[in-house]
Amino acid sequence: MVKIQPRILSGFMELAPAEQIKFNQIMDIIKSTYEEFGFTPLDTPALELSEVLLAKAGGETEKQIYRFMRGDTDISMRFDLTVPLARYVVMNQNTLTFPFKRYQIGKVYRGERAQKGRFREFYQADIDVIGMDKLDISYDAEMPAIIYNVFKKLGLSKFVINISNRKLLKGLMESLGLADKSAEVLRIVDKIAKIGKDKVVEELVNIGLDKKSIDTIIRFIEIDGEDKKVFESLQSFGINNEIFTEGISELTEVINSLAALGVPKNNYKINLTITRGLDYYTGTIYETMLDDYPQFGSICSGGRYDDLAGFYTDKKLPGVGISIGLTRLFASLLENDLIKPTVATPAHVMVVPITNAEKEYALSLGADLRALGIKVLTFTEDNKFKAKLNYANKVGVPFVAIIGEDEVKNRTAVIKDMATGEQQTLPLEDVSMFLINKIMEAVKGKILQS
Amino acid sequence: MVKIQPRILSGFMELAPAEQIKFNQIMDIIKSTYEEFGFTPLDTPALELSEVLLAKAGGETEKQIYRFMRGDTDISMRFDLTVPLARYVVMNQNTLTFPFKRYQIGKVYRGERAQKGRFREFYQADIDVIGMDKLDISYDAEMPAIIYNVFKKLGLSKFVINISNRKLLKGLMESLGLADKSAEVLRIVDKIAKIGKDKVVEELVNIGLDKKSIDTIIRFIEIDGEDKKVFESLQSFGINNEIFTEGISELTEVINSLAALGVPKNNYKINLTITRGLDYYTGTIYETMLDDYPQFGSICSGGRYDDLAGFYTDKKLPGVGISIGLTRLFASLLENDLIKPTVATPAHVMVVPITNAEKEYALSLGADLRALGIKVLTFTEDNKFKAKLNYANKVGVPFVAIIGEDEVKNRTAVIKDMATGEQQTLPLEDVSMFLINKIMEAVKGKILQS
Repeated sequence: MVKIQPRILSGFMELAPAEQIKFNQIMDIIKSTYEEFGFTPLDTPALELSEVLLAKAGGETEKQIYRFMRGDTDISMRFDLTVPLARYVVMNQNTLTFPFKRYQIGKVYRGERAQKGRFREFYQADIDVIGMDKLDISYDAEMPAIIYNVFKKLGLSKFVINISNRKLLKGLMESLGLADKSAEVLRIVDKIAKIGKDKVVEELVNIGLDKKSIDTIIRFIEIDGEDKKVFESLQSFGINNEIFTEGISELTEVINSLAALGVPKNNYKINLTITRGLDYYTGTIYETMLDDYPQFGSICSGGRYDDLAGFYTDKKLPGVGISIGLTRLFASLLENDLIKPTVATPAHVMVVPITNAEKEYALSLGADLRALGIKVLTFTEDNKFKAKLNYANKVGVPFVAIIGEDEVKNRTAVIKDMATGEQQTLPLEDVSMFLINKIMEAVKGKILQS
Repeated sequence: MVKIQPRILSGFMELAPAEQIKFNQIMDIIKSTYEEFGFTPLDTPALELSEVLLAKAGGETEKQIYRFMRGDTDISMRFDLTVPLARYVVMNQNTLTFPFKRYQIGKVYRGERAQKGRFREFYQADIDVIGMDKLDISYDAEMPAIIYNVFKKLGLSKFVINISNRKLLKGLMESLGLADKSAEVLRIVDKIAKIGKDKVVEELVNIGLDKKSIDTIIRFIEIDGEDKKVFESLQSFGINNEIFTEGISELTEVINSLAALGVPKNNYKINLTITRGLDYYTGTIYETMLDDYPQFGSICSGGRYDDLAGFYTDKKLPGVGISIGLTRLFASLLENDLIKPTVATPAHVMVVPITNAEKEYALSLGADLRALGIKVLTFTEDNKFKAKLNYANKVGVPFVAIIGEDEVKNRTAVIKDMATGEQQTLPLEDVSMFLINKIMEAVKGKILQS
């Protein structure tokens, strides 16, 4: 028989067991945090009608889409979780309760040019709160609290959630009589971290801005310091058009709520240089940076938008949301040794009979331990004892319960701690409590190494 | 702006929030049970190279596959989780530890003709144990124990795991000098539940079997009763070819282990009429039926196979596995009112300020409760109080913590039980313990209604 060489498509992540276990732990933390804030799960199909999915798309995005015909049906794979959300909300607007708080963690597909750190299939972990006609600004404050809780629980402490509000720069531009240049200026300012201040000034000159306007814009994006000082600086511009005033008022409420929500001062910052690339953000915006790994870029971004689903409905559906690019984040953590995958089994203990004569006793002990929630691998291959322990070592199971002739006779088990090599014989009735205590200790450990 | 009508592809399941919560609870139980038995998670791409994915496929399966070109690349969407497992194991054979116990819960894709109860995108929840060259028979006994634990935890108690071993019928056929007709006879016998005994006899006549052989085959598949009686009946055939003897010995070990593994007698049964359609099973086979809903068909099936990946490698990779067709099972449970989705939020409590003046206090209470693992929705829209309670009712959150002027002053909260309507004012420090006790009580409830 001719053999086919097994291989996968390039740009698709596939993990080793120990890596996958770490990946799932991170995903579980994100999921449970989203649920702690009352977000409800959603799971939309990976395939959509192209006409529906691409109602708004265009340009680069559209080129990256996996799109194909099946019979007469023009089908596309989802490239994000936002468009399917918009479709879902409009389809189900009469049965959903607003504000609708949903989370979705799922794979999306983009046939990008293959390059390091970019994936063609990757997980996004999104939350959004969608209002019908209106949505209170306090939901904008909840987002940094969720970001803070996720990354704190992951064991990362040195990160900053950068917060701004697009209405501020927009209001500033209006006050300079440059409202029509807002989009261009946002795009240029967005690059300041990458290209530096001088280049930004150069580009602003190139689009025809005068020196005074450029000075004002630079003075604006250079505002820095404690929250109170930032607001004083903003007031010093003496702008009182409606959009700027709204921006100040929204940002004030967001920042004031963060203390109540338990977000420490060193984990957020008002940063007026962030603007987010996407057109559809209209108010609060977020970008999250790791202090020691700026090269990761923003590991969690998002913002407020006025109109989720204008391409499907006339109803106004304002929302606010954030997204974690989980696959990319995981790859970066792995590459920087912030995760060390060592354990290739979820099991807490491996029960192993020394010979086949103890197999039934071992299976029975396994069942008893599982009934108490302990995760148990039973190793029942008829190998040499050394090979059995070797298996335990390779998969990284922390404890082994060894069952020989004596253990069956005395109704005991020999418990071996694989990290220290220590062994002790315990009566059967003490085995579960011993393991449960050990598991509780281990749970206190952190997922990340930092 | 022209609006596109939002809609989804036919044959794709998309759930309402309350349904999705139930679906995820079921998926979590399956996942945690798989992990309790020491299976490690795997997550393969949804897209594969067609050449690799379709190495073995053909016929009906191949027609159903979503397949398309992207540039020069011939891509297919996975139609099951077994072929990707085979590919993964062969690709990673030098780093994996054998026996390799993996679970995978993921969506697979089949462009079948649309019909009731059939889906084009559906979840499979699979486990397999893969050996290198050999795999102990005790893993075959573990499978029914896992099936039992999954369905027991789901709250289903009236189900039977039917167990057989293909070697028995094969050995019988060999003893009748009909080894070459084995496959055909298996296929016919497999239909007995659907078409009845008379039709089976008719079809056996049609393929040219004589009366004596047919009588023997019928006597074989009509074997019934307690395990002990079944083995006696099997012995009474006086067959002693190698394959029959192996079948007896394997089935004996599987059945004998079930008591040690805690599987009650009324939840399994030796049933020699089951054969499983797929060619590749070679030993133990399983089908799981609900006593009161035979129309669901088998809700969990699987078996032992000699050769997982013959199309990729010359290495022998024997395995045993089971699969739950989760999407179809969920649709059946829903249709038969065995699941009643009523709660559209994961939150345990909704904290609601009466006016905006209490918003900050409410956000802070929410943060404190979350720190203790309580899932908290904070409702901060500036609505009338009645509208706020109406929201709680609609999403089905079990408790509401109401915060007014007095509560802020006295550092209390009014806790309303939404099921009974009862209200009580509690000091802040008692709120969390009250809720935790209530949550513990609720967790004892069952997911299914049966």
